[in-house]
Amino acid sequence: MPVRAIIPFKPKNPKTRLSAVLSLEERETLAEMMLSDVLDAVVDAECTPVVLSTAPYKLTGIETIVHPGGLNEALNEILPKAEGPILIIMSDLPLATPANITELVSTTAKMAMVPGRGGGTNAIFLREPSRFHTDFYGASFLKHLDIAAEADLSCEIIDSFRLHDDVDEVWDLVEVLTLGSGSTRRYLERLGFALSTEKGRVGVKRDPHEQALLGGN
Amino acid sequence: MPVRAIIPFKPKNPKTRLSAVLSLEERETLAEMMLSDVLDAVVDAECTPVVLSTAPYKLTGIETIVHPGGLNEALNEILPKAEGPILIIMSDLPLATPANITELVSTTAKMAMVPGRGGGTNAIFLREPSRFHTDFYGASFLKHLDIAAEADLSCEIIDSFRLHDDVDEVWDLVEVLTLGSGSTRRYLERLGFALSTEKGRVGVKRDPHEQALLGGN
Repeated sequence: MPVRAIIPFKPKNPKTRLSAVLSLEERETLAEMMLSDVLDAVVDAECTPVVLSTAPYKLTGIETIVHPGGLNEALNEILPKAEGPILIIMSDLPLATPANITELVSTTAKMAMVPGRGGGTNAIFLREPSRFHTDFYGASFLKHLDIAAEADLSCEIIDSFRLHDDVDEVWDLVEVLTLGSGSTRRYLERLGFALSTEKGRVGVKRDPHEQALLGGN
Repeated sequence: MPVRAIIPFKPKNPKTRLSAVLSLEERETLAEMMLSDVLDAVVDAECTPVVLSTAPYKLTGIETIVHPGGLNEALNEILPKAEGPILIIMSDLPLATPANITELVSTTAKMAMVPGRGGGTNAIFLREPSRFHTDFYGASFLKHLDIAAEADLSCEIIDSFRLHDDVDEVWDLVEVLTLGSGSTRRYLERLGFALSTEKGRVGVKRDPHEQALLGGN
């Protein structure tokens, strides 16, 4: 049975911490590009993607569940009823590769997880989803380790920066421009983003000319 | 021949971006704790550590080279004369494990690298060190990829958050308190550091009582 990969997605007004450098429309397109990179990795790893969206959203050929409530509320309705293994993977991981997904779903443990930057959880693979429940937000990685221990589920921690580096802040774009090779990187470059180094620290800059050409903010 | 692992180290006034939460003495101890975690990983992986220090520094049983000049200047004196493979690994990687080091030095390519957060380079393994030179600072990871390509050296990029997450900023301490298990984490906890969550974002807080007990700033 192929693994179903649930990908939470917020199509409307996503990634507000990038508002200083991206317009609303650009943030929505960036979120779509990141989702596209994650979908590519998931599909190439022969998982069946299911987009769990906070608002109506259509993607040809891909199952979409709309659940306007909180992420935990939605997932904790799905997990108890799930038949077969489930992967939960965030949609803001533009560095993800098929090999990363394969490693996650090939664990010999009962489940596998990847921590996100800043205490969060970026991916959870569950062989027996009904034995687990999620508690996203805040320091969720430690909470998820506790939930696994309480349910007596062995858990492998997958050591991958490609699944660890999520995109929330402007400085996270440095990783995409350094290590990315998919739709997200190409979109940022089309918008005129490039690396910039000042006093030895690397950041990103946006070329105002490119910005104007693309009708940016 | 065992791999020599060169570990650049700054014992005096290190990690100045942590000055808001750590005194000078505490920053120096933190740097020593991080070095200790990296040394543990390197030694357990059966590499021979060499500390490359910017100032006189003694560690019983461990070779130390003092080079007050720049990091590139020091390394680019060492690499051309090196006999046998060399690993260069930063000293601010408190999540490093022996398995990470073994993976690096076991590459089937001519060299292997791990990018740091923010465009830097956290580890370089060189089978033939004389064919490479370093160009640290700024967006060094991309520069090092270019140097590898120019020298026709195949290069594996090792996908590990444990070697990717270096400690420079206060928010980097979240990773240590979430994912660390060595001397660095224990030291931070002794100083009274703990995770704190505000408005869904995870940061660190420092207990002023613990701070006082330890004579902190």
